[in-house]
Amino acid sequence: MTVYTRTSRPADALREIKITPNFLPHTDGSCLIEAGNTKVICTASIDESLPPFLRGKDQGWVTAEYGMLPASTASRMRREASAGKQSGRTQEIQRLIGRSLRAVVELDKLGERQILIDCDVIQADGGTRTASITGAFVALQMAINKLVEAGMLVHNPIREAVAAVSVGVVGGVPLLDLDYPEDSGCDSDINIVMTASGKIIEIQGTAEGAPFSIEELNKLIELGSKGISELMEHQQKALAQTTVQTA
Amino acid sequence: MTVYTRTSRPADALREIKITPNFLPHTDGSCLIEAGNTKVICTASIDESLPPFLRGKDQGWVTAEYGMLPASTASRMRREASAGKQSGRTQEIQRLIGRSLRAVVELDKLGERQILIDCDVIQADGGTRTASITGAFVALQMAINKLVEAGMLVHNPIREAVAAVSVGVVGGVPLLDLDYPEDSGCDSDINIVMTASGKIIEIQGTAEGAPFSIEELNKLIELGSKGISELMEHQQKALAQTTVQTA
Amino acid sequence: MTVYTRTSRPADALREIKITPNFLPHTDGSCLIEAGNTKVICTASIDESLPPFLRGKDQGWVTAEYGMLPASTASRMRREASAGKQSGRTQEIQRLIGRSLRAVVELDKLGERQILIDCDVIQADGGTRTASITGAFVALQMAINKLVEAGMLVHNPIREAVAAVSVGVVGGVPLLDLDYPEDSGCDSDINIVMTASGKIIEIQGTAEGAPFSIEELNKLIELGSKGISELMEHQQKALAQTTVQTA
Amino acid sequence: MTVYTRTSRPADALREIKITPNFLPHTDGSCLIEAGNTKVICTASIDESLPPFLRGKDQGWVTAEYGMLPASTASRMRREASAGKQSGRTQEIQRLIGRSLRAVVELDKLGERQILIDCDVIQADGGTRTASITGAFVALQMAINKLVEAGMLVHNPIREAVAAVSVGVVGGVPLLDLDYPEDSGCDSDINIVMTASGKIIEIQGTAEGAPFSIEELNKLIELGSKGISELMEHQQKALAQTTVQTA
Amino acid sequence: MTVYTRTSRPADALREIKITPNFLPHTDGSCLIEAGNTKVICTASIDESLPPFLRGKDQGWVTAEYGMLPASTASRMRREASAGKQSGRTQEIQRLIGRSLRAVVELDKLGERQILIDCDVIQADGGTRTASITGAFVALQMAINKLVEAGMLVHNPIREAVAAVSVGVVGGVPLLDLDYPEDSGCDSDINIVMTASGKIIEIQGTAEGAPFSIEELNKLIELGSKGISELMEHQQKALAQTTVQTA
Amino acid sequence: MTVYTRTSRPADALREIKITPNFLPHTDGSCLIEAGNTKVICTASIDESLPPFLRGKDQGWVTAEYGMLPASTASRMRREASAGKQSGRTQEIQRLIGRSLRAVVELDKLGERQILIDCDVIQADGGTRTASITGAFVALQMAINKLVEAGMLVHNPIREAVAAVSVGVVGGVPLLDLDYPEDSGCDSDINIVMTASGKIIEIQGTAEGAPFSIEELNKLIELGSKGISELMEHQQKALAQTTVQTA
Repeated sequence: MTVYTRTSRPADALREIKITPNFLPHTDGSCLIEAGNTKVICTASIDESLPPFLRGKDQGWVTAEYGMLPASTASRMRREASAGKQSGRTQEIQRLIGRSLRAVVELDKLGERQILIDCDVIQADGGTRTASITGAFVALQMAINKLVEAGMLVHNPIREAVAAVSVGVVGGVPLLDLDYPEDSGCDSDINIVMTASGKIIEIQGTAEGAPFSIEELNKLIELGSKGISELMEHQQKALAQTTVQTA
Repeated sequence: MTVYTRTSRPADALREIKITPNFLPHTDGSCLIEAGNTKVICTASIDESLPPFLRGKDQGWVTAEYGMLPASTASRMRREASAGKQSGRTQEIQRLIGRSLRAVVELDKLGERQILIDCDVIQADGGTRTASITGAFVALQMAINKLVEAGMLVHNPIREAVAAVSVGVVGGVPLLDLDYPEDSGCDSDINIVMTASGKIIEIQGTAEGAPFSIEELNKLIELGSKGISELMEHQQKALAQTTVQTA
Repeated sequence: MTVYTRTSRPADALREIKITPNFLPHTDGSCLIEAGNTKVICTASIDESLPPFLRGKDQGWVTAEYGMLPASTASRMRREASAGKQSGRTQEIQRLIGRSLRAVVELDKLGERQILIDCDVIQADGGTRTASITGAFVALQMAINKLVEAGMLVHNPIREAVAAVSVGVVGGVPLLDLDYPEDSGCDSDINIVMTASGKIIEIQGTAEGAPFSIEELNKLIELGSKGISELMEHQQKALAQTTVQTA
Repeated sequence: MTVYTRTSRPADALREIKITPNFLPHTDGSCLIEAGNTKVICTASIDESLPPFLRGKDQGWVTAEYGMLPASTASRMRREASAGKQSGRTQEIQRLIGRSLRAVVELDKLGERQILIDCDVIQADGGTRTASITGAFVALQMAINKLVEAGMLVHNPIREAVAAVSVGVVGGVPLLDLDYPEDSGCDSDINIVMTASGKIIEIQGTAEGAPFSIEELNKLIELGSKGISELMEHQQKALAQTTVQTA
Repeated sequence: MTVYTRTSRPADALREIKITPNFLPHTDGSCLIEAGNTKVICTASIDESLPPFLRGKDQGWVTAEYGMLPASTASRMRREASAGKQSGRTQEIQRLIGRSLRAVVELDKLGERQILIDCDVIQADGGTRTASITGAFVALQMAINKLVEAGMLVHNPIREAVAAVSVGVVGGVPLLDLDYPEDSGCDSDINIVMTASGKIIEIQGTAEGAPFSIEELNKLIELGSKGISELMEHQQKALAQTTVQTA
Repeated sequence: MTVYTRTSRPADALREIKITPNFLPHTDGSCLIEAGNTKVICTASIDESLPPFLRGKDQGWVTAEYGMLPASTASRMRREASAGKQSGRTQEIQRLIGRSLRAVVELDKLGERQILIDCDVIQADGGTRTASITGAFVALQMAINKLVEAGMLVHNPIREAVAAVSVGVVGGVPLLDLDYPEDSGCDSDINIVMTASGKIIEIQGTAEGAPFSIEELNKLIELGSKGISELMEHQQKALAQTTVQTA
């Protein structure tokens, strides 16, 4: 096994992050999040009705859908709408995004409405699910701000921010924020979703290559924790721009 | 019936057009086309294999798929991949895009390969199918240039440029390049696909509101013809940028 | 290019047209329309309920479905029910039939009910979509007559008759009412849907072979217009038979 | 329970039977079969290829598909192609038709080809599956005659004719060839498929209403046997017409 | 044709039958039925609501679903949930189970509720549909006993027991209760569903191999009748166990 | 928040575990695994062909499918085969099982074949995915033993055993091996897949209720690690039985 050396940036550095809020201005909340060459459009749509199974429970809901443009990947993938179904991977990711956001929202303070999040990958270079969560939080917060500003919500039902990043071991080296070539060749790969207060909402670690010990896991979580703090600064900066806009 | 007066621009003017080539740089050809608030990502992917029914016929193929981000419309629409099928409208549009492009390509000079076009609407404000065709031609030309530059094609198999625009009668007034509110309220609506030499490839006119006479049709075609000439200047300007890049 | 000479009939002549009303007597309206070897069963079914999105709007609806028997074509095609979905072509055609009929019906005078049109091709030799529209109008009128006779409608909500025909250029020659071999080999192919007063409801022109000029388009429309007048005589004759029957 | 009295015809009589051969002349075999108000178009299509699981086994295949026009029933039923799947009933019927025909064909003398049978009901008044079998045999025999005449088959691989009929007990009375009202109200209902030599190929008896004894079963089979003999005379007459035509 | 000799048991003997009631104790009724190597889990679930088409008719409903574990057959079959649809065979079988059970239940004495039967084959060696019916009756009776004991039903709405068995002719010899190798090689195969009073509810005979005469049919029914009497003793013994348990 | 007290067993104890090997004797490997009231049938089927994307790569494959009997849950769930698709949850679980098993198999020593694992839940009381993994390993090992014994594999390609368990925090208390009521009310829930050497293959932690700290995570992993050691003893005991059988 040759030891991997990342040349483009330090092992513990994020890729260049850019969050453009209001990317689709007619939506209730939106941003374009770029993490290196990974680019995802995240939008939030307020829906003043609830799915049947949630009606009359005096609570709201947050749910998410995820998709990739066919040409977002290096070799064009099949369009899921034309294939007639979403892959298992797609469903897994959109369930993860939904759970991650719901964990920071007090659903009983959201009113009887749902917020639908869409994360559409326009260019994929690894880490699309974590970028989706990080960007989706920005879109969600924007939609909730809109409800508060319109007087439809008295209190902000968001407990704290949430963001996500991937970490992994490639060629024996622990790395923060894997790009696609790193992700493909990694021994193990962990997606971490964390709150602003440093608590874990979701952790999904997979080691098809080489199983990892508890010590290695802890080292990777620490790395992820550092990355998530930085991502949250980008979220806040992006949200600050929207506040100015709406003021 | 009140006569409609368009205030934002003259009745015979296009919306502001912007074509950004190389929008997704890792594809074989791509652009973002903006016609007012309508925004479509168009990409071309070269596939060195053919679908079974075309193999061994010593010709190539061009085909297209079309999609809309759920949040691209004013009120979020259902994701087709999650609904499990493409709507009739989607299929109709992608068949139109494919036919329009094939009409200007000498398929027997393309080699035994296909070029797959994807048109994904990220913001919709009327005229998404015509913007898709106009943008798709840019992506297609870029992919073919790439084949020529790589020596995989000796001659450019494209006969001439193709572009498309909608025209219609709103409140009795013939208009060029309808936006969504105009399109929803129109008496009749015609999509015209034309070549650089001013010939018609496709014409699709619908009059659920008020049927139109042959004279009205001719007036509308003339209006469309003017718009298409202008769109082709935008296409050439965008393509010129890519040539400089690759030189 | 060899010039095509149609030997079976003049270039501006329809195929032999035969409309047999009441072909399926238990329906609310029906006919068998034959245009040469093309044969389509058209039926109308009155449904005293409306789809959810139209309820409470004080209007009715007309919609259409289209199908082909697997053995209707020269080489048997796959049954769509067994394939599990309708092709893009099928959906395109049934949307066209629905739009064409709605354009001549005052929906707000139809009451809160819908009329479902079925066009089932039992033998196909070109022009199945235009024959469907022409025959569907007969079935629709019969169903509406039934509502009027039963006192469920006070006024006939049909503004005027509608019929359709295809025209095209084959081997340089403009032809009326293409059969399948002509349609397959044509340079361009236009389907025209017109009202009794000579106005255009739908025009769909496609030129995968050779784009056409505006002059050629006008010549073809004139040819179509002549054919549609003749088709409307057949419609009226067929409807006259049904009136006698019910008197 | 009131005893049922059939007024239109004797209890042991078939409805009026009419078999029109060559109903769709461009197919390899076809007829329109009418049993009272039940009308089914049956066609046979020769396919010189076999499905993968049958290749290289030195035998042929016969298979069938069944469908109903949406307007064939008293109140319009949903189109299966639009519903996206065939109902359990449809699948059950087409499997029955296929098995019934295969039972009289020596598949190893058919060559490596399949014959596809389509039975499409255009008007339904009970007994559509049995009429389909009776008509399908005519279409199948025509297709096989065509192969023999073309020298593609040396011997007729059909062992003997097959036909089918329904029998049942309505209001305590055993009846031959139930129409729809009789079928809906019956105590028990048996579909019998028999060969010319009087042997049973399929028997499907259902008694949701009142279970029947073995004696009753035998009485019903006798009734069915009589009806099938008469149906076979109609088949032979129809086939005789086609022989004259091709001679 | 060589005459077949069954060595494992007499020609008129059932395989070893074992019915284990309460196999899934948390359901409303359940058993594991084993007929030789064929093993089916049958369960009954009481649902206090009815499908829309049955509401307000003052009656209940019994319906069934059938499935096979992918590994239940000698060579693993495709999972239907993953294939995205139930095969024609599956639908045919589950319709048969439902009809067979409904024939012995007075639906108008069941209350406005439905009982859902699930028959899941965990090991298949022929006769899975007949074993399903025999086991399903046990599960159904248990569910109904539960309703009676809970005072939700005053009278037992079951008229009499129902069970099913297959009979067939293999190598010229009539056999009771075919296992898979016998079933695959048989001339004809008949599934018989009978009541405790010896009446026939369903009879489904198929002779793809060699058609059978009415005499042969009667001999086979007699054989089946004997087998069904024995199966009903197994049902009663199993139900007796559950009564003791609940007492 | 009230503190939860588990009364049935200590907080760090597994439910009663029972693994019955050879549950379906005709398969290549099988067991019934019971963890308290959760019961899963796990089977392994050797397939001497590979899916197209893996052919010619000189390696084998292990994949898994997961299903639940409709009556396995407290209130009957919809059959996925009848719904026409697998839920996102089902797909997520079967992907997890497949990855977990592949992580302990040297695929390049498996030959060009695949082993298909089926995990079918017949009774569900929490922890079905982890029980599936633990049982699936037993079935997989049995199938591989069979290949080794048959001389089709020279070496055992399994690196080490794998098993899985869930841990979680309920009412503030860390618990091993949650049953369904505990799982529904938990603050956080972690599924851990580990190897015999104590390394982690998969870890999936979710905290919709209350996010957890890194310290809490470590405590839960320790608990899981203890449970997995015990599960592996059950696996070995079950496998020992099969070895005796085949000796």
